[in-house]
Amino acid sequence: MLHFQNDYSEGAHPRVLEALKDVNLTPTTGYGCDEHCKAAADRLKEVFACPDADVHFLVGGTQTNLTAAAAFLHPWEAMIAADTGHVCVHETGAIEATGHKVCAVPAVNGKVTPEAVRKLVAEHRTGVEEHMVLPRLLYVSDSTELGTIYVKKELEALRAVCDELGLLLYLDGARMAAALTAEGNDLKPEDFAQLCDAFYVGGTKNALLFGEALVIVNDDLKPFVRNVIKQRGGMLAKGWLLGVQFEALFRDDLWLETAEHANEQAQKLSKGLSDLGVKFYIDSPTNQIFPIFTDEQVEKLKKFVAFDFIAKVDDTHSAVRFVTSWATPEENVDFLLLAIQRVLK
Amino acid sequence: MLHFQNDYSEGAHPRVLEALKDVNLTPTTGYGCDEHCKAAADRLKEVFACPDADVHFLVGGTQTNLTAAAAFLHPWEAMIAADTGHVCVHETGAIEATGHKVCAVPAVNGKVTPEAVRKLVAEHRTGVEEHMVLPRLLYVSDSTELGTIYVKKELEALRAVCDELGLLLYLDGARMAAALTAEGNDLKPEDFAQLCDAFYVGGTKNALLFGEALVIVNDDLKPFVRNVIKQRGGMLAKGWLLGVQFEALFRDDLWLETAEHANEQAQKLSKGLSDLGVKFYIDSPTNQIFPIFTDEQVEKLKKFVAFDFIAKVDDTHSAVRFVTSWATPEENVDFLLLAIQRVLK
Amino acid sequence: MLHFQNDYSEGAHPRVLEALKDVNLTPTTGYGCDEHCKAAADRLKEVFACPDADVHFLVGGTQTNLTAAAAFLHPWEAMIAADTGHVCVHETGAIEATGHKVCAVPAVNGKVTPEAVRKLVAEHRTGVEEHMVLPRLLYVSDSTELGTIYVKKELEALRAVCDELGLLLYLDGARMAAALTAEGNDLKPEDFAQLCDAFYVGGTKNALLFGEALVIVNDDLKPFVRNVIKQRGGMLAKGWLLGVQFEALFRDDLWLETAEHANEQAQKLSKGLSDLGVKFYIDSPTNQIFPIFTDEQVEKLKKFVAFDFIAKVDDTHSAVRFVTSWATPEENVDFLLLAIQRVLK
Amino acid sequence: MLHFQNDYSEGAHPRVLEALKDVNLTPTTGYGCDEHCKAAADRLKEVFACPDADVHFLVGGTQTNLTAAAAFLHPWEAMIAADTGHVCVHETGAIEATGHKVCAVPAVNGKVTPEAVRKLVAEHRTGVEEHMVLPRLLYVSDSTELGTIYVKKELEALRAVCDELGLLLYLDGARMAAALTAEGNDLKPEDFAQLCDAFYVGGTKNALLFGEALVIVNDDLKPFVRNVIKQRGGMLAKGWLLGVQFEALFRDDLWLETAEHANEQAQKLSKGLSDLGVKFYIDSPTNQIFPIFTDEQVEKLKKFVAFDFIAKVDDTHSAVRFVTSWATPEENVDFLLLAIQRVLK
Repeated sequence: MLHFQNDYSEGAHPRVLEALKDVNLTPTTGYGCDEHCKAAADRLKEVFACPDADVHFLVGGTQTNLTAAAAFLHPWEAMIAADTGHVCVHETGAIEATGHKVCAVPAVNGKVTPEAVRKLVAEHRTGVEEHMVLPRLLYVSDSTELGTIYVKKELEALRAVCDELGLLLYLDGARMAAALTAEGNDLKPEDFAQLCDAFYVGGTKNALLFGEALVIVNDDLKPFVRNVIKQRGGMLAKGWLLGVQFEALFRDDLWLETAEHANEQAQKLSKGLSDLGVKFYIDSPTNQIFPIFTDEQVEKLKKFVAFDFIAKVDDTHSAVRFVTSWATPEENVDFLLLAIQRVLK
Repeated sequence: MLHFQNDYSEGAHPRVLEALKDVNLTPTTGYGCDEHCKAAADRLKEVFACPDADVHFLVGGTQTNLTAAAAFLHPWEAMIAADTGHVCVHETGAIEATGHKVCAVPAVNGKVTPEAVRKLVAEHRTGVEEHMVLPRLLYVSDSTELGTIYVKKELEALRAVCDELGLLLYLDGARMAAALTAEGNDLKPEDFAQLCDAFYVGGTKNALLFGEALVIVNDDLKPFVRNVIKQRGGMLAKGWLLGVQFEALFRDDLWLETAEHANEQAQKLSKGLSDLGVKFYIDSPTNQIFPIFTDEQVEKLKKFVAFDFIAKVDDTHSAVRFVTSWATPEENVDFLLLAIQRVLK
Repeated sequence: MLHFQNDYSEGAHPRVLEALKDVNLTPTTGYGCDEHCKAAADRLKEVFACPDADVHFLVGGTQTNLTAAAAFLHPWEAMIAADTGHVCVHETGAIEATGHKVCAVPAVNGKVTPEAVRKLVAEHRTGVEEHMVLPRLLYVSDSTELGTIYVKKELEALRAVCDELGLLLYLDGARMAAALTAEGNDLKPEDFAQLCDAFYVGGTKNALLFGEALVIVNDDLKPFVRNVIKQRGGMLAKGWLLGVQFEALFRDDLWLETAEHANEQAQKLSKGLSDLGVKFYIDSPTNQIFPIFTDEQVEKLKKFVAFDFIAKVDDTHSAVRFVTSWATPEENVDFLLLAIQRVLK
Repeated sequence: MLHFQNDYSEGAHPRVLEALKDVNLTPTTGYGCDEHCKAAADRLKEVFACPDADVHFLVGGTQTNLTAAAAFLHPWEAMIAADTGHVCVHETGAIEATGHKVCAVPAVNGKVTPEAVRKLVAEHRTGVEEHMVLPRLLYVSDSTELGTIYVKKELEALRAVCDELGLLLYLDGARMAAALTAEGNDLKPEDFAQLCDAFYVGGTKNALLFGEALVIVNDDLKPFVRNVIKQRGGMLAKGWLLGVQFEALFRDDLWLETAEHANEQAQKLSKGLSDLGVKFYIDSPTNQIFPIFTDEQVEKLKKFVAFDFIAKVDDTHSAVRFVTSWATPEENVDFLLLAIQRVLK
């Protein structure tokens, strides 16, 4: 069976695993108050050029997002997210379980637009605000759930609309490295720190066993976040496991190297499929691609490759998702292309 | 510096780490729906003699406890716990953050008594129940936060009072293996499944990188627990990391071997201190011991050993906590005793 | 100033106020456990032909809706509502504050359609349900927030889709009496009890000082609702104030008489405006109507009549809302028509 | 049957009811944004000498308390309350349902002491604060649940401990008027505004149909409280019903007159019982008294007087509670004394 179902199907990059092994028997302070977490945080602050930021390491993405909601929002405040956003769809109402509404706005290619934000906020500022939630935190993902990326101008425009409307900008970077290494990207790490109030850099989907680094730039959002992490069950007892992994991931820019590999495999696959005449649900420059097949072809594909179904596109066709990772061997891509070629005949 | 601060200061037992390494590059299904989680669950059901139980693997203890509260309780229902219980004191109000009150009862040596439960419930059944929370889930820990253990008769008595009063019995087994291997223990693994509606078996404090296994015996509590786990941020993307670790931990009863080692070191330390004339805050047969020193001695100890302060016992004396783990070298115990001997002079 | 802003601008019908005065000094049991609440509940069970229902009296609509969410839903379950629904828009995230997501579906004339429900539920049943909320309770209003009404066939179709999909049907009847007395209505009170799992009958917008009667038909939803009411702050100490008012409102079908009056005034106004050539945003047979004026006309109207702005319909026109109540004097309608006639010239 | 069960068994003082009747048919703006609420708020700010306070009118006490918790506390912050406090015992976990823990401290005569607060806070400031809730808001009641009152020195001492420890002081004044008119009281209305960050003045238990006035003195606590009121279901559509009642209650100091009457009846009863040799569970100068009878006598009393059972005091005796109200006729007190005299023989 070929695996193109997601980018969290393998463990950790060997250098990450090695680092964990190195410290395994050294007694270390718990709960993230150790030297490895400190060093990793320092390295992240350097890479993202935000020396005064607070960095917290958490185990997973949903946990990070719900912690942000609980920590950053007052009870009457709401998130805004693309209707395709992870917090809208695939977190079992985790944000709502913290008491906060997620206001969905129509996404364009998985991305939030300033116009959609402005319209949503206007609808909530009609003179009877106390009868409606107060949209307060704009949630965006880069790369998005559809594999697309924001260019700098787009993220700047969202920052501008946030400033205009008094919103916080929070970026889910579960696949940030994939975005940064994608063709067409013009954002640099420091731009996220410049433009966002807070963001997280994903490790789970980029060569760690697990781990997301929450970077809080806006001073107002910093106090008591560790209390919220603990209260919401996100404080890892052996917190240094996160620090050690992030240290290894950011040493010699491994995080970009791993993401670049994943992108290259996906783009090779994409080009190969195009050459075979396959159409796509959406154009994506990152490690998730969305080819369209006939339902009959989809059934045949299922027999030798694991992947996700995305949507029916018409009565006889469906879009599926192929995802590559830092660990996807190039020969698997070649083999998949060959196999699909046979299916398409 | 000697480390006796807690039992989660080291990584994983080498056999656990090896197992993780073995599967590292094998593509595996996410979210705990993999073969390793299945095998580990099967093994636990065998060890605890509860073939029909549901087993879920979570990353940490607070997360497991809050998931249980959210999944098992109706909005108007409350937990009962010893006033020294972890959920009462050291989880930053995690249970309350799910909307549920924790009713504290006075603990005897860290343990809940049937009398205390009966009294608490009686106070909540006065004919105006709808104005009070409904105590519903009794939370106990074994071993307790004070290192003590329940004997079978005591746990049976709590089960009986739960049956009598319509309560659920939930056991926090963060240190269950320490209890099972302690001198004086007469409980067997299957007793927990027989007597509890649900319980969890701790891995974080017993030789895993992280991981707790929530075992649900009562059929009524089984549905939709995975949804709650996801909603509360507890679903690990690379869920097999938990399955693989528990497989290794329960192979050849490693879990008892590691706990036995920890207990032996603590008891050796305890005996050595007694021989030096040191008194104890409480008698504990497990891997946590609570000697009393003068405040002056405590200050001296701090210079070469890491440990936790517990309580002032009088104007000039304090109780502290020494904890050993599966990884505590016996020579460290010897060295600590020698060093304390010098301090006491 | 003429008042057409809402149907809760006046106090109570004189017969209701008289009833309150009659019992004012009689010592009465608190919290709704009195004879008046019992008698009113009995009367409602008779009118709605549901002798086994539970009836609870609450002060307001948002309170009733959030109590229903908290009492009827498990943590992982969600509401479904029209995107124009009160719970979606105008309750400051009250449902989310109980931890539950509200899934919005596109409304047709303020009404939910079976197709929209089926589509929404299908999107949440894709084989990875635990990553999404479980839509469980369908919320509908009759009359709707746009003054429209469900006919029996429509409500039956929603019941059928609920049965098909395992959903609960909950009806917000803040303006149920307006619906029942509207032209075109073919629903009878007993139909609500037949077709819904629970519903509430509004008093605040129909001649009471305050008060909504929550009727629970489905046995599974009955236990412990009073506990939730208390916990959510909805239990009125002098609960008999609600019982006495509902007794008076349902004596000699006063509730329908008051609603009929309101509808007649709105429809007279509607016809008068039509005769003047005014177009409408939506056709409504109840006590809320939505005429369209030029923005210039709107400004002129504001000087002598209180009303709500609804929406811009194009660059120069806006829809507004006129609402009549049980207390609207017919001469006010006549006067408003005369005044508008002058504005339109 | 004689009624001494509580002080909310009758409707409203005739002058209050008359005021409601006077405005009954006058169209009035909803949600508390009307002239009556404004005038009542102004009057309260005058009486309590806090011209810059925000005043919100809510329907009931539990609702007011849970709104305060939701509005004033961050997710990681907790309330402190006497173990006999209403929020601890009789609100069905309403505070916990907003996500906040209530830390109980031992009460002395129903009152919180600075020592107890200091001890509780010290236990939560041990260097690992993020693992514990942060006690933040001290909840006290005056008069207390046991009918006792704070003298000025005591309330000042609590203010001082709050300042010392960075706590907010919130006073539940459901029976504030009873406290202010009690023998031994030396607090004046303005003292509450001087010493508390926020407090509420009760109407439900003092001659209104319903209604509590939340007075927020501390500027930091003022923003967005109306949003929380709406979100928690506490915003009354016909909000002027609250304003009109409070206007009437504070006209010519009716609120003190009604409370004084209640106190006088209770104290007359208390003296009469003392003269008959009856002992008391606690000494109370307000409208709640707590005589002790033999269980046999209690059974006899039940036949002709309604009252609450409080506690067994020994094997054969129980404490009960008699409560008087603004509406208790003096002859009922006389008749009760006569009847008890017969029972005691």
